[in-house]
Amino acid sequence: MNGRLILGILGRLMVLEAAMMLPSLGVALAYREGDAAGFVWTILILLAVSLPAMLLSPARREVCTREGLVVVSLAWVLMSMFGALPFLFSGSISSPVDALFETVSGFTTTGASILPEVEGLPHGILFWRSFTHWVGGMGVLVLTLAVMPKLSGRGSVLARAESPGPTFSKVAPRMHDTARVMYAIYTGMTLLQLGLMLLSGLPLFDAAIHTLGTAGTGGFSNRNLSMGAYNNPWAEMITMVFMLLFGMNFVVYVRLLRGDGWKSFRSAEVGAYWAMAAVSTLLIAVQILPEYSSFLSALRYSSFQVSSIMSTTGYATANFALWPQFTHVLLLLLMVVGACAGSTSGGIKVSRVVILGKAMAREIGQAVAPRKVRLMKMDGRLISEQTVRSVLVFLFIYIAFLFLGTLAASSDGHDFVSSFSAAASCLSNIGPGLGVVGPAGNYGVFSPAVKMFLSFLMLAGRLEFIPLLALFHRELWGKGH
Amino acid sequence: MNGRLILGILGRLMVLEAAMMLPSLGVALAYREGDAAGFVWTILILLAVSLPAMLLSPARREVCTREGLVVVSLAWVLMSMFGALPFLFSGSISSPVDALFETVSGFTTTGASILPEVEGLPHGILFWRSFTHWVGGMGVLVLTLAVMPKLSGRGSVLARAESPGPTFSKVAPRMHDTARVMYAIYTGMTLLQLGLMLLSGLPLFDAAIHTLGTAGTGGFSNRNLSMGAYNNPWAEMITMVFMLLFGMNFVVYVRLLRGDGWKSFRSAEVGAYWAMAAVSTLLIAVQILPEYSSFLSALRYSSFQVSSIMSTTGYATANFALWPQFTHVLLLLLMVVGACAGSTSGGIKVSRVVILGKAMAREIGQAVAPRKVRLMKMDGRLISEQTVRSVLVFLFIYIAFLFLGTLAASSDGHDFVSSFSAAASCLSNIGPGLGVVGPAGNYGVFSPAVKMFLSFLMLAGRLEFIPLLALFHRELWGKGH
Repeated sequence: MNGRLILGILGRLMVLEAAMMLPSLGVALAYREGDAAGFVWTILILLAVSLPAMLLSPARREVCTREGLVVVSLAWVLMSMFGALPFLFSGSISSPVDALFETVSGFTTTGASILPEVEGLPHGILFWRSFTHWVGGMGVLVLTLAVMPKLSGRGSVLARAESPGPTFSKVAPRMHDTARVMYAIYTGMTLLQLGLMLLSGLPLFDAAIHTLGTAGTGGFSNRNLSMGAYNNPWAEMITMVFMLLFGMNFVVYVRLLRGDGWKSFRSAEVGAYWAMAAVSTLLIAVQILPEYSSFLSALRYSSFQVSSIMSTTGYATANFALWPQFTHVLLLLLMVVGACAGSTSGGIKVSRVVILGKAMAREIGQAVAPRKVRLMKMDGRLISEQTVRSVLVFLFIYIAFLFLGTLAASSDGHDFVSSFSAAASCLSNIGPGLGVVGPAGNYGVFSPAVKMFLSFLMLAGRLEFIPLLALFHRELWGKGH
Repeated sequence: MNGRLILGILGRLMVLEAAMMLPSLGVALAYREGDAAGFVWTILILLAVSLPAMLLSPARREVCTREGLVVVSLAWVLMSMFGALPFLFSGSISSPVDALFETVSGFTTTGASILPEVEGLPHGILFWRSFTHWVGGMGVLVLTLAVMPKLSGRGSVLARAESPGPTFSKVAPRMHDTARVMYAIYTGMTLLQLGLMLLSGLPLFDAAIHTLGTAGTGGFSNRNLSMGAYNNPWAEMITMVFMLLFGMNFVVYVRLLRGDGWKSFRSAEVGAYWAMAAVSTLLIAVQILPEYSSFLSALRYSSFQVSSIMSTTGYATANFALWPQFTHVLLLLLMVVGACAGSTSGGIKVSRVVILGKAMAREIGQAVAPRKVRLMKMDGRLISEQTVRSVLVFLFIYIAFLFLGTLAASSDGHDFVSSFSAAASCLSNIGPGLGVVGPAGNYGVFSPAVKMFLSFLMLAGRLEFIPLLALFHRELWGKGH
């Protein structure tokens, strides 16, 4: 374990975070609501802290697996801690636990809020809150890789640790090129959505906030009623489409850019993703039909909610906590599943569900004809036994934390549905749940200890557990290697 | 696929079922409540049906895997269908769907009831209802093996199909000897409990009913208030201890009989089982303390409920649906886990949870030091990769059905907790759940379609899915092999 190397990378990241605060500082200065000073202080603190860390850093050295795990975990924790300072300095949030919860919720693109009202907050703060979504969506270390080619030697270790599983495909020969391609697509799509949102008639600030929230599949809004405040079908439709697009594996866009045309969409995961969205939308539309004037109207609300939950964004145009029970069970499932690997979304990812389905089918086949050799394939490529096992184990770690989160939330005395959906929503980085954390509620109802645990769940879900859990593994701190 | 062989085995099983009705017929004749005729008719029908089936049967032939799967599935379905007839003939239950639900619930040792009141039922019917628990507990095909050595050639195929997973150890060189040893231990323990229950002061009939329900870890009672009706601490304590004992892997008793002493208990599964029971009892006792007069009193109710849920029996001495939310989350977890493999209990089994825990730890270790070779062991023996994968996939099939069951129950308009706990309770063969299916409620609230689906879940859970799912697998019906 090379401590100086870790410090060096983290130092660079803090400088980057200081730079990331500049747009928000700009907004704060433009609106003159007294929140600019908070950003200036935070930026100064970040620079002061990062300077010695960067001086300690060795010239150039490869990052190994164990260091990668430590860097990723610490990076997210530190980014969140420093990112919470503007909320505290500006007085927008008074409790440090609440400010941390809100920032973790931002960076992890969860969008769960402890604030009952957001409309009174200064614009700079609102912008920072939503900007964290955008940064967190693509991953803070991917960003580091994109802007700092120096690290690219074994940068894939970092990228893999930050978005593990069958996700981070190498689309360019060098890691920092991949990171740049990804960020270019991400920025392009964000600007496209922003333009369309402006055309739909939303004011610039509101359009920006909701575009940042959509791109990162985060879900923070500057309105108490979220997207429902505008009753603007065009803005809803644009948001809905872009939520689904940002929930798709970005490799699709890389292939599109390369000119693969419709072939780009040909993957088991993308197919399953759209099929799930379509079927869920229809099932829910039928269930909520009695509450709306027409099937088209029911379809409008159900398709928006399904897209929002599946992409783990969390915007709402209706209080779905009031919909029939059947829709809740379905929405809870969608919360757990999430969208595609290699997207900005959370959840266990559709690709894992596809692999799970194949593993189940094979197991039954094995029982019927035990001596037949069965290979598992996806998109024409063999899935290794190691991958199958990792996927299955990952899902159980998710379930174990889902249970612990439910247990923790229920220890505050909340009912099972509220507790369970809060845990699922945080783990899958969605935001709203059901019951007390429904679209009309907020996470302020929980005790500080539960808020801390839910913050941990958001981070654990975003980093897909392994880096955080590795910190508690004996061998990480052992000698050798 | 040898159809005649399958028919032959099923025919024998029907004769056995006719024989199994004789004790209930005796009870009916003794009490003279008009239910005897129903048993006589059912016995005649069973014999009439089984005779041609047995005549078709070939002399002696080995059972292969695929035939084993078909036999096991059909056996449980047919046993339940014919077992439902006495309820209908006696007029105790008027709807065929309800009668089937009650019988499936009996044979699968679930103990979920559609009857709001049981105290008015004839004694013969009550006895039959509880006797199905006792038969189902050890497995109907194990019973067939025990009494029909002719099948023993490849009888292990049947036994494995009926209780798959890491459960059915060969404790004797020949399968039907194993089955006999198991049934001998089972009968011995049942008689021991019956004697103790009589000593505690319960009337003979009540003692018999609750002993049958405990031995099979079923949970049917002849009292509306279940065990709570007696307020007899001795009977409760005896029941509690025996629920836990019947939930333990029977291999422990085989080893005890062989004189292995305390060493018999040395297994990771048994250790985890008792640890879970102890920790859960304490956690729940602390939570319900405010509702009871003393810690000892809280301990009495919590230990009984934990034992009842973990062993998947389902008796209740308190309406735990009124306990704090935290206890519900814990009880739901225990419902899913169940007790030990190789016991009469349901659920996913503690041994699978132990293997799951080991797989998780290994996965994290793998992330920290990817090149290290890690073998998984349990009780000193290597766990094959195939076993690990089967265990993980099994757990997901359980979860998939849990979700489908919740979705089905919620389509009747029931809340999430009621729907979820009903599905979990049926899958794990427990009986009571929370909400509308809590200890004070019953399954009569569901629509016939949902009752049918829940009956399927009880069977699927009892047979651990594979045999029933295999029926839908293309290759089962293919040629060759």
